[in-house]
Amino acid sequence: MEVLQLDLDRTYQALRDVAGGDKFVPLHEPQFGGREWSYVKECLDTGWVSSVGSYVDLFEQMLAEICGVRHAVATTNGTAALHIGLLIAGVRPNDEVVIPTLTFIATANAVNYCGAVPHFVDSEWSTLGLDAAKLDNWLSEIGDRRENGLYNRQTGRRLAAVVPMHTFGHPVKMQDLVAVCSKWGLPIVEDAAESLGSLYLDNPLGGWGLVGAVSFNGNKIVTTGGGGAILTNDAQIAKRAKHITTTAKVPHAWAFVHDEIGYNYRLPNINAALGCAQLEQLPGFLARKRQLAVRYAESLQSIDGLRYFCEPKNCASNYWLHAVILDEPRERDEFLQYMNARGLMTRPCWTLMSELELFSNCPSSDLTVARNISARLVNIPSSATL
Amino acid sequence: MEVLQLDLDRTYQALRDVAGGDKFVPLHEPQFGGREWSYVKECLDTGWVSSVGSYVDLFEQMLAEICGVRHAVATTNGTAALHIGLLIAGVRPNDEVVIPTLTFIATANAVNYCGAVPHFVDSEWSTLGLDAAKLDNWLSEIGDRRENGLYNRQTGRRLAAVVPMHTFGHPVKMQDLVAVCSKWGLPIVEDAAESLGSLYLDNPLGGWGLVGAVSFNGNKIVTTGGGGAILTNDAQIAKRAKHITTTAKVPHAWAFVHDEIGYNYRLPNINAALGCAQLEQLPGFLARKRQLAVRYAESLQSIDGLRYFCEPKNCASNYWLHAVILDEPRERDEFLQYMNARGLMTRPCWTLMSELELFSNCPSSDLTVARNISARLVNIPSSATL
Ligand SMILES: Cc1ncc(COP(=O)(O)O)c(C=O)c1O
Ligand SMILES: Cc1ncc(COP(=O)(O)O)c(C=O)c1O
Repeated sequence: MEVLQLDLDRTYQALRDVAGGDKFVPLHEPQFGGREWSYVKECLDTGWVSSVGSYVDLFEQMLAEICGVRHAVATTNGTAALHIGLLIAGVRPNDEVVIPTLTFIATANAVNYCGAVPHFVDSEWSTLGLDAAKLDNWLSEIGDRRENGLYNRQTGRRLAAVVPMHTFGHPVKMQDLVAVCSKWGLPIVEDAAESLGSLYLDNPLGGWGLVGAVSFNGNKIVTTGGGGAILTNDAQIAKRAKHITTTAKVPHAWAFVHDEIGYNYRLPNINAALGCAQLEQLPGFLARKRQLAVRYAESLQSIDGLRYFCEPKNCASNYWLHAVILDEPRERDEFLQYMNARGLMTRPCWTLMSELELFSNCPSSDLTVARNISARLVNIPSSATL
Repeated sequence: MEVLQLDLDRTYQALRDVAGGDKFVPLHEPQFGGREWSYVKECLDTGWVSSVGSYVDLFEQMLAEICGVRHAVATTNGTAALHIGLLIAGVRPNDEVVIPTLTFIATANAVNYCGAVPHFVDSEWSTLGLDAAKLDNWLSEIGDRRENGLYNRQTGRRLAAVVPMHTFGHPVKMQDLVAVCSKWGLPIVEDAAESLGSLYLDNPLGGWGLVGAVSFNGNKIVTTGGGGAILTNDAQIAKRAKHITTTAKVPHAWAFVHDEIGYNYRLPNINAALGCAQLEQLPGFLARKRQLAVRYAESLQSIDGLRYFCEPKNCASNYWLHAVILDEPRERDEFLQYMNARGLMTRPCWTLMSELELFSNCPSSDLTVARNISARLVNIPSSATL
């Protein structure tokens, strides 16, 4: 039987045809071509760089509109947003939280910050995200409905929430997932860290569950240096999110009373100023990233041994990170070595959470598809500047 | 018996003589008179606003030098620095951590983030900070030395660390505290959030214990919008601090392996750029704040019913927040109302941690002095710009 062999040089040329030049091309770089400068300067000129200043409010308003939710609460980063989202969804110590094994470490860490245990489930090929139908089957197998919630009959712990993550910007089938989660009585905390601007059934992501979390890290489609936000349609939840992320201080002319454990997760005004200028450019970023997808698809079409990953049906993805799927897992490291050595920055998918030593004792369903994706997927240069 | 009555109008005039004008005077406002502008612009021009960029390194170097320690690790804020400092000092779930009851909420919250319980102790009048001699007596009463550490014989929990906090910049008697803590085998995590630039026995604060934590919040003597740092003289600890604050990712050309629970506590490069420019101006800020102390002391000298709080002996305080001590606690709220209504921003001390509902079940020693301080102390306008 003949071994499939990817033609690395042809692939390299096809990628270069899109990414251009012969210089180093990073995986993702931000672009500051808007009013970043004047907004940040205003912060410095007024002295409002920190917790005082209007850019945080403006940023939250712009964001809520873009994400189609009633409220956005800005945070120091996406990890902080997820942490508070989980707390607000009612995740308590020793609960279990369902998350895809195929995700960035922050999703699992945020569960841990609540004292809870991640419960890993499988993804599906069409979206690279949580497989709702498979989750439904799995819950039928292990779910034990009790008066005060759903329990995992294998571990005896309460299942407290489900966290879908929109991998590289591609939407999870949220309609199916919402149906499954409401059937089982589980709140959804949407990890929309990577998917700002993506649409699913013509609606933005982040507002499909009880709360959503976005990231504005330096490598995201829109950046605030470091930043994040909690999204929700519920005014009470938004109020609580603002309260907990700002040390849970009770409003008073001068007295310092804090009525629960709070966090210093407030986004500084100077970072919000950067974010406002970036959000103004989001439509342009989206158009260019989606255009890049068309060019990659075309250029890589004739290459045997891999396929370019296209957005799922009924979606418009922000194509945060572009990806190819190799036919042969064992060719992956050679591919990475070859491209990185020649200045095309590429990287594999994350190590599955279930394969990290530190989460090795956590419960999980069958993870066949996620294992397959993780072994064969490679990210390629994805900047809107390309 | 005659009731002492503070002359509020005379006090107001004496404060205005120093704080100037008749406009609104905030408690503390930052000043951006240095190279903030050009450093931040460089970040935007190069696109290095986030985790890539050299300002974080430079900021850490400058800070280490200023604080007289070998290593500084920049973080999203002072709360994050304290959290990681405690983890590194070995604080584990269900431990107790000794902290002053007179402190900002972040000190107690950071203990809670580790799953540990704050154990409140008293302060002393001369420093407004932790009373080392009283702590020593208290440990003699409740301390139970066992093979694997010191235990609280009243609660059965392990005592894991001591966190002195330098109130408003005034140094705790660290020499005494270091002696007491080494006698009892307790590591010190120094909450130096408020005391950047202060000297105790000619040495900066933050490096007297195993680790120290600084804050660069917008209201601090030097600001990064939001920011903090972990200080230490131990290279291993510094390395671990950097590792845990940056998601505990194991270095690799492309693979994503994380070897313990980590955090996204990295300070963005754009905030570090601001910090570098601010640190360059620290000597000037210090000189002006110390000059302000001389002026306040003079101006308030002849007012009956209060005294201006001066730095402890053997110290040079950064005078982060200036304070007066009222003779009569019951005159405090009237004082605050009077001054705030006339545009002089003043505020009381924090509510004692032991008096907050959420910490009401935590262990504590006698807290007589802290109660007295908290009832009588008021902060007055303190900006270096005054
Ligand atoms: C899936 C996912 N979740 C959470 C996060 C956390 O966001 P941040 O880096 O802003 O903390 C990220 C981004 O880094 C992410 O990709
Ligand atoms: C005593 C004390 N500890 C900790 C902190 C926390 O610092 P930050 O606000 O940067 O999180 C502060 C400042 O707010 C403080 O005053």
